[in-house]
Amino acid sequence: MKQATPAAVDVAEFVARRSVGQSLEAPFYVSQEFFDLDIEAVFARHWLFVATDAELPEPGDYVTVAIGPYSIIVVRDDNEDVRAFHNVCRHRGARILGEERGTVGNIVCGYHQWTYGVDGKLLHAPSQAPDFAPSCFSLRSVHARTVAGLVYICLSQTPPEDFDEVAAQAEPYLAPHNLAKAKVAAQIDLVENGNWKLTMENNRECYHCGGHPELLCAYFPTYGYGEQNLPAVLRPTYERYLQADAAVRLTYDSLGLPYTLVEELDTRTTGFRIQREPLDGAGESYTSDGKAACKRLLADFPTARLGRLAFHTQPNAWFHLMADHAITFSAIPLGPDRTLVRTTWLVHADAVEGIDYDLDTLTKVWAATNEQDALFVARAQQGVSSPAYVPGPYAPSEEDVEAFANWYVTRLRAYLSDTERQR
Amino acid sequence: MKQATPAAVDVAEFVARRSVGQSLEAPFYVSQEFFDLDIEAVFARHWLFVATDAELPEPGDYVTVAIGPYSIIVVRDDNEDVRAFHNVCRHRGARILGEERGTVGNIVCGYHQWTYGVDGKLLHAPSQAPDFAPSCFSLRSVHARTVAGLVYICLSQTPPEDFDEVAAQAEPYLAPHNLAKAKVAAQIDLVENGNWKLTMENNRECYHCGGHPELLCAYFPTYGYGEQNLPAVLRPTYERYLQADAAVRLTYDSLGLPYTLVEELDTRTTGFRIQREPLDGAGESYTSDGKAACKRLLADFPTARLGRLAFHTQPNAWFHLMADHAITFSAIPLGPDRTLVRTTWLVHADAVEGIDYDLDTLTKVWAATNEQDALFVARAQQGVSSPAYVPGPYAPSEEDVEAFANWYVTRLRAYLSDTERQR
Amino acid sequence: MKQATPAAVDVAEFVARRSVGQSLEAPFYVSQEFFDLDIEAVFARHWLFVATDAELPEPGDYVTVAIGPYSIIVVRDDNEDVRAFHNVCRHRGARILGEERGTVGNIVCGYHQWTYGVDGKLLHAPSQAPDFAPSCFSLRSVHARTVAGLVYICLSQTPPEDFDEVAAQAEPYLAPHNLAKAKVAAQIDLVENGNWKLTMENNRECYHCGGHPELLCAYFPTYGYGEQNLPAVLRPTYERYLQADAAVRLTYDSLGLPYTLVEELDTRTTGFRIQREPLDGAGESYTSDGKAACKRLLADFPTARLGRLAFHTQPNAWFHLMADHAITFSAIPLGPDRTLVRTTWLVHADAVEGIDYDLDTLTKVWAATNEQDALFVARAQQGVSSPAYVPGPYAPSEEDVEAFANWYVTRLRAYLSDTERQR
Repeated sequence: MKQATPAAVDVAEFVARRSVGQSLEAPFYVSQEFFDLDIEAVFARHWLFVATDAELPEPGDYVTVAIGPYSIIVVRDDNEDVRAFHNVCRHRGARILGEERGTVGNIVCGYHQWTYGVDGKLLHAPSQAPDFAPSCFSLRSVHARTVAGLVYICLSQTPPEDFDEVAAQAEPYLAPHNLAKAKVAAQIDLVENGNWKLTMENNRECYHCGGHPELLCAYFPTYGYGEQNLPAVLRPTYERYLQADAAVRLTYDSLGLPYTLVEELDTRTTGFRIQREPLDGAGESYTSDGKAACKRLLADFPTARLGRLAFHTQPNAWFHLMADHAITFSAIPLGPDRTLVRTTWLVHADAVEGIDYDLDTLTKVWAATNEQDALFVARAQQGVSSPAYVPGPYAPSEEDVEAFANWYVTRLRAYLSDTERQR
Repeated sequence: MKQATPAAVDVAEFVARRSVGQSLEAPFYVSQEFFDLDIEAVFARHWLFVATDAELPEPGDYVTVAIGPYSIIVVRDDNEDVRAFHNVCRHRGARILGEERGTVGNIVCGYHQWTYGVDGKLLHAPSQAPDFAPSCFSLRSVHARTVAGLVYICLSQTPPEDFDEVAAQAEPYLAPHNLAKAKVAAQIDLVENGNWKLTMENNRECYHCGGHPELLCAYFPTYGYGEQNLPAVLRPTYERYLQADAAVRLTYDSLGLPYTLVEELDTRTTGFRIQREPLDGAGESYTSDGKAACKRLLADFPTARLGRLAFHTQPNAWFHLMADHAITFSAIPLGPDRTLVRTTWLVHADAVEGIDYDLDTLTKVWAATNEQDALFVARAQQGVSSPAYVPGPYAPSEEDVEAFANWYVTRLRAYLSDTERQR
Repeated sequence: MKQATPAAVDVAEFVARRSVGQSLEAPFYVSQEFFDLDIEAVFARHWLFVATDAELPEPGDYVTVAIGPYSIIVVRDDNEDVRAFHNVCRHRGARILGEERGTVGNIVCGYHQWTYGVDGKLLHAPSQAPDFAPSCFSLRSVHARTVAGLVYICLSQTPPEDFDEVAAQAEPYLAPHNLAKAKVAAQIDLVENGNWKLTMENNRECYHCGGHPELLCAYFPTYGYGEQNLPAVLRPTYERYLQADAAVRLTYDSLGLPYTLVEELDTRTTGFRIQREPLDGAGESYTSDGKAACKRLLADFPTARLGRLAFHTQPNAWFHLMADHAITFSAIPLGPDRTLVRTTWLVHADAVEGIDYDLDTLTKVWAATNEQDALFVARAQQGVSSPAYVPGPYAPSEEDVEAFANWYVTRLRAYLSDTERQR
């Protein structure tokens, strides 16, 4: 009596029968089963962007990160390396650090004062029996590493090994942006009422960009379009884009910086995409007129008119790096139908608010665009929740959405195959 | 270890062993399994009242209707027919129309501008590949029809065929009330904290009418009682009822209008009941003194003193039609323990608020009665949620509650039998 | 594919493999399955403290008690005995009494006026068929009894038989405190965001007492410590404790009252512990200086300087009885991660607020301590919800936590064994 009982969704069947070229079937977006699978097979097995070096400038600085049921402490240790630990006391399991960020000397559980070093070692546990061995009760560690100022962690004990290759390809693009010398100018958390994959699908295409008036002041809505699928209405914009692209490419070439698109979205475990692109208007930054939002440039560039560096790492992070500032985005699943989108604006550590940059000008375009996207994602979630929903075709300009779905389904298949083998 | 784990409720077993003459076992009211079964077997397979013609006077006027996980657009098309479609874009499934009501030229999805006619056909999808066939992507249609101004839809592809017979029996009663010439004077949505079946059981008996002081100004609380089970306290009321009934019957006879009760509550797929009854006090309408609430009569009647027409269609709608105004009610399941009760007051389209009718006077009796019923339903839900609850006996005057339960269980059996066959 | 689907937790396996000496595995604290099992196997099968005689002074006085999905009426009958009934009408199951406390002549269901005596018998059900037998529709009864003014109920039809033995051991300790002559001075309900077992574990140890500054004004934080595991920092406090203990013991001996610790926490079905202990400071009561909070003593004692009587009954109640007042505590599971802690302060019925006692002084220590414990419990719940949580070792001073866990797991094993046999 299949429709009558809320029978467990057979995730393996849905994964196996996924059709390319169209959106996923409803259970991927609405079921608790797929939410749990996504946490376990995607978020707990891949490298995740969780913070920037700028958020952890000094030893003892930490942020706590929530990934599904996990809580992780990311902390700079006394060697100035970034380390990560499960935020769970080894005594009776209390959450140790309750704040989102802060600075500690040691990591002390407030319940019974078990005290750990920033290297995770248990330094002190009051009133124990003589045979108690503190060395058995270090905090459980989590893999952590940085790439040009971006902090990634991996909850798996055997993280994907190809991250080194990705880092090696991305670093020449990222390095001139000096993220390690940045400070956080603003951070906005927005809860979208939709599945995290709808957030990502929304982010991966510009087929809906007509709904983003603020964005279009600076952004060429030709993303995903080329000669073969360009709609007539975008023709003048596309010509302008080609001119701007040629100009910016010349500048990068003269600076000896790479400009070529690298796209390995669904062809490796750590799928990614990195691309330089011109911006519209003044061509400098994401503002209402395209001019730089911060006078003190962050990047080692002689001019601000250098468009953007677009970086994306599967499953859930993307970045816009301009000459004057950088923006990081991540989408964290909160439930089958709720996703946290965290947006962080970075400027040069020496830039002064009110003098070098105005916070409203800096954040306006993407704060507005995120709000608009939240409405789109909520509508998508509402729609796919109807039993009448059937997957529909991706448009030609949605090729990166397809690449996201391909990567995602491939990773689920790898996980299901691994766990099958282990049984 | 049956009590210890939240084992899936075996709905088939509970349906099979249901005892007549008493309330249903707890899982019918409290479990997610029966909620899902009710949506699928009852709400998605039967004709449901969802609106009145008065809510869709012109082509392009629409309402959106939420039935469990479904969202449906009910719209008047360019031929002035009422049509219904799933409110799900055929592209990536977004909810198309987000408002409860409005007017459209075409049905346009705000996400990527896919544009459908009010006949459901896809008129335009931007930037598609050359082989894209718009005709394959019409909105998925839902059966819709009207009966004397009442709009019904059925989500099943094979709706119950006996609705024509019901309509034919009901229309002679309903037609003089001119619902198609009405306008909506007021609409109140009330969320009751109980299962939809408790809402219906509450509605189907007057054994609890002592709890409705406002209602009793106009309503004879003798519903369900006859000579054989009349309590002494109701004797004077009953005598008054008999006199009023005889008088009203004469008037209807002189008008050539049918007066006889037709009751097929649990003897057909589209169970229904239609009955004319006198009202108390002035005998005209549901007001504090029984006088008409609207000077401009809605019905084609020479006098307002014509009591009420009571119409009920399984599973979830009931109607009171008086000479001066009409009221429609529907109960929509929101969850195992939450139900939306929508009440709509209709007056003649030409009646003027403040002159012909006063909104407070018009709505007072049923707004108050609904609030009282909401408390009864909440208490019933609380009580049946206790493991100590055991079904108890329906009183003789609760015969229509029993008929509701009979119809409901019969329909579940039919569904379970059909799905069993299909396996 | 075990991690991927929200497979039902196999409670029997977790119960069977529980390791002594360390905290429980995560599903005990976070799963719906264990929550349901705890209600059924622990709360519905054991004696539960639910009120004091002081809350039901006169015939017809009642309180309603919520235990998981159950609602129970506890009422003093016309013989001045305490009785308990399920708060579910025998007609269609409505919750009968909606208030937390009150006074009734009869117990009348407000839905259809079914009327029961305070002995549970159905006195009147309106308009029934001639063959209706009221005697078949008494309220379903619940076992109830009092111990020295403490009201206990048991939802099982076959309550644990050893409660008489427990009562016989506890009454000599409790009786001088005159709880039956008390009145309620204050009652505070606090919802803790954690599993009820984390509430109990928190309550059963003083390893965390450094987090309770108000409490330490009156309470010796040496609970759980002895010569063999005393930390150096507690040495001066412990010496003071030993002196105070000797002095108080002498007084009790001179009064002919028992002082010896009786501890049967995990060695019987109705596990309990009763102990007299000195208090710190003035040694009289739980106040900022240890002095009595109420001039009018509640206990039959010649002096207030008599410390506290600590009484605990598994699974969820504990009591502090001083010369001047008494405090009762109970922890009621509301969900896997929510627990109601009800604290009631009792003073002599003749004590006058503002003259004999000040409410803030009376409640300050434990109101503050409860709030602090709520934060500890919430952190424990957050931590054990992480998949990275592994059970950790109880410290030597947490021996009563271990005893609680032992009792709990033993009771689950008894239940699972019984239900296994019944299949």
